[in-house]
Amino acid sequence: MASKLIAIVAGVGPGTGAAVARKFAKTYPVVLLARNPENFESLAKEINSSGGKALGISTDVSDSGSVKNAVETIKKEFGSDIGAAAAIFNASGGFLRKPFLEVPEDVFSKSLDVSAKGGFYFSQATLPLLLKGVEQKSEHPPSLIFTGATASVKSNALMATFATGKWALRALSQSLAREFGPQGVHVSHAIIDGVIAIPRTKEWLKDLGPEAKLSADGIANDYWWLHTQPKTNFTWEIDLRPAVEKW
Amino acid sequence: MASKLIAIVAGVGPGTGAAVARKFAKTYPVVLLARNPENFESLAKEINSSGGKALGISTDVSDSGSVKNAVETIKKEFGSDIGAAAAIFNASGGFLRKPFLEVPEDVFSKSLDVSAKGGFYFSQATLPLLLKGVEQKSEHPPSLIFTGATASVKSNALMATFATGKWALRALSQSLAREFGPQGVHVSHAIIDGVIAIPRTKEWLKDLGPEAKLSADGIANDYWWLHTQPKTNFTWEIDLRPAVEKW
Amino acid sequence: MASKLIAIVAGVGPGTGAAVARKFAKTYPVVLLARNPENFESLAKEINSSGGKALGISTDVSDSGSVKNAVETIKKEFGSDIGAAAAIFNASGGFLRKPFLEVPEDVFSKSLDVSAKGGFYFSQATLPLLLKGVEQKSEHPPSLIFTGATASVKSNALMATFATGKWALRALSQSLAREFGPQGVHVSHAIIDGVIAIPRTKEWLKDLGPEAKLSADGIANDYWWLHTQPKTNFTWEIDLRPAVEKW
Amino acid sequence: MASKLIAIVAGVGPGTGAAVARKFAKTYPVVLLARNPENFESLAKEINSSGGKALGISTDVSDSGSVKNAVETIKKEFGSDIGAAAAIFNASGGFLRKPFLEVPEDVFSKSLDVSAKGGFYFSQATLPLLLKGVEQKSEHPPSLIFTGATASVKSNALMATFATGKWALRALSQSLAREFGPQGVHVSHAIIDGVIAIPRTKEWLKDLGPEAKLSADGIANDYWWLHTQPKTNFTWEIDLRPAVEKW
Repeated sequence: MASKLIAIVAGVGPGTGAAVARKFAKTYPVVLLARNPENFESLAKEINSSGGKALGISTDVSDSGSVKNAVETIKKEFGSDIGAAAAIFNASGGFLRKPFLEVPEDVFSKSLDVSAKGGFYFSQATLPLLLKGVEQKSEHPPSLIFTGATASVKSNALMATFATGKWALRALSQSLAREFGPQGVHVSHAIIDGVIAIPRTKEWLKDLGPEAKLSADGIANDYWWLHTQPKTNFTWEIDLRPAVEKW
Repeated sequence: MASKLIAIVAGVGPGTGAAVARKFAKTYPVVLLARNPENFESLAKEINSSGGKALGISTDVSDSGSVKNAVETIKKEFGSDIGAAAAIFNASGGFLRKPFLEVPEDVFSKSLDVSAKGGFYFSQATLPLLLKGVEQKSEHPPSLIFTGATASVKSNALMATFATGKWALRALSQSLAREFGPQGVHVSHAIIDGVIAIPRTKEWLKDLGPEAKLSADGIANDYWWLHTQPKTNFTWEIDLRPAVEKW
Repeated sequence: MASKLIAIVAGVGPGTGAAVARKFAKTYPVVLLARNPENFESLAKEINSSGGKALGISTDVSDSGSVKNAVETIKKEFGSDIGAAAAIFNASGGFLRKPFLEVPEDVFSKSLDVSAKGGFYFSQATLPLLLKGVEQKSEHPPSLIFTGATASVKSNALMATFATGKWALRALSQSLAREFGPQGVHVSHAIIDGVIAIPRTKEWLKDLGPEAKLSADGIANDYWWLHTQPKTNFTWEIDLRPAVEKW
Repeated sequence: MASKLIAIVAGVGPGTGAAVARKFAKTYPVVLLARNPENFESLAKEINSSGGKALGISTDVSDSGSVKNAVETIKKEFGSDIGAAAAIFNASGGFLRKPFLEVPEDVFSKSLDVSAKGGFYFSQATLPLLLKGVEQKSEHPPSLIFTGATASVKSNALMATFATGKWALRALSQSLAREFGPQGVHVSHAIIDGVIAIPRTKEWLKDLGPEAKLSADGIANDYWWLHTQPKTNFTWEIDLRPAVEKW
């Protein structure tokens, strides 16, 4: 299978991660990373039983050893020369909304470690595979996509824990876009500015109607669009929000 | 023909405008606006002779009367109840790179009038048609797209003439996105950050290779992608640049 | 009087303009520009009768001829070789909050003309005087300061008329800062993000306490601070808001 | 001494930190934090022998225990009820300019820990003292000031290590400004956009003349200006650069 490029999705859960994995699985074997196997097991089964190929690997992106193990597992499965067509970092530090002086140190620290160090470990692990994708003349420029949030560009009161990691991740993506674009890797950052429609948010924003929440499948389509842009027309950043969202 | 929605492109020239018109002409009758008829005549002929429908109207977007006349001509051609699926403002004030104290008043003034007042007149003229597109349940949310530039977000030395109009236009697009998104119209702004490959730029950046310039057809694809986003996932702003571009 | 540098303040009214004029009048003869003489007459009297020197000139900054006449009057009064230590652009297009499709063309146009063209005419008229201030070795680097607003960086729904001009003015200030900084002129932009305490706003925000509004004298102090920065430490932009302001 | 408010400066070195400490020592007893005592010993001696009061404490801001120990030492010296008039975070992660795939994990991690976690620990430790400064009716609103850099707003190629921490710190400062401004604490962020004139940079930029580098004393003056702003006119962010700087 070594000749086929793969897509790697970190932070697979019931929303964006799963939708992105399903979308990219139509074209590439997909690797699903999440700390908790419950987050990828049924999805992997679904993809594998419907003609695609998925491999779930329990991974803590904030732990560099765990990320390295994931790459080892990938190479064992797909061959040591495997290249990647896409790597999508959808993991995120915890969303804590709390007066600053009540934020526990370890909560802040863990949140930053997942968003910022996680983004770093994931990028160092996947960029060599993406550069191999360039060498192997992938149909579309290999893509490294980071999922951001409203808090990636606005740091509101009580939101320091979440926003610091998200700003750091956006900085990472911008620097990587500038360094790896000329090498043929397309690095992007998506600002998801709104609530995503997932089971957990089912009761939210009901008064604003059925279109008040972002569609995870829509986000997946947008990531695919980013992935298929040619080298002459790379987008670094997009924002995404429901039409009715106040911003 | 009144039941069919149209697309209106202002600022049709040999680059982005023409490519966007060709792209949207595959689905909609297109109206081509440019001051100089030479800029749309052959394009209109090309579209009309290849199964599409195009109407060119000589229009000075910086002149509100001229913009109103264009709308009258549109209604005469397509019916007074015509709605629009897309309106694309691709006109631009002159690109003057000059020490500030040597910039002639009328050049500054004209540039601002095209970008900022032009954007205003075009938006006031087309938004009623786009809202009709909403009423008439267009397949994709009606789109109002503005073409920006590097100078839309960075105002370099010697570039005040061009940048002032471009910042004003970006402000216009952001305010309209916030006002008309909830009404179902998708307002976007594209930052074109690089040189576009058109006949006039053929000899530019040759040492950087064949992919150093933006593809106008690629931009058209990106505008079409913006146009087809569902109401749950509107993008206000994208940036676009060649992979090798320094930024 | 030709050896003394002057300060020129455009947009003198009951708030920021008057406070800035009073502050700078402690050190420099001041020229007060406003369309309506009522806006500067009593202030000029006050400054002249308390040991300072003030000259009011009725000027429409959106009219280049009117701005040129003001410079002629300045030269007649202070000598044709007069230099400036400071020029402060505090004029502003009208603040109209209205659904976009109800904004009269001439209101939009006038607002843009005051903010953007006014900023251009004022800068072209005063920069030669500021450069003379550099030649004449002013104690502090000659300063060109623009007054911005919340709407200089955020373009809300219904605010297109005001925001377009303010974004254009900010672009102008950034380009001029980059061009004229190396020539010794300090160009700055101040984002006034809140309500200023003036007679007209006396009844506003009363529930938030006596400190919910910006002090015009405080703004004047901040402008003076910008003016006194040495050439090694120029600030282009500051934001200013009451401690209790939501942002 | 409990009735006197103190100023705390973290990241005291030969440049900004020392200059800020000297400036604030004219009004307040100052606490000097640096990991290496060599960085504050002679400065503490200088301040103590010239009529001021300085206390140096060896502190690693990236270690929460070390920061807590510093606060204990402060309370032992100044009384358990001591309040602060100013707390200045001038520490910074390492400035590494390197291809991303060659950045050692521990270097990235340490840099982020100093800038982002350091900023967090320092803020959680000093905000209670600053709030006491509010209670004790300090003459000027107690100030929490963060030192940023060019890389706080632009994340260039090869600069991911430094920029991620700086963006995170800026996010922290913005969130804290919004939360603690209404409580009377003035939180600011200064973008130092250029080379600071210190012994280590003596040979840099010589061809651009003696004013091509930022003056550390000038930065200290600017921080003092931020500190003395009244509650009606708080600045969150300033940028600072030499007049001749390209930006």
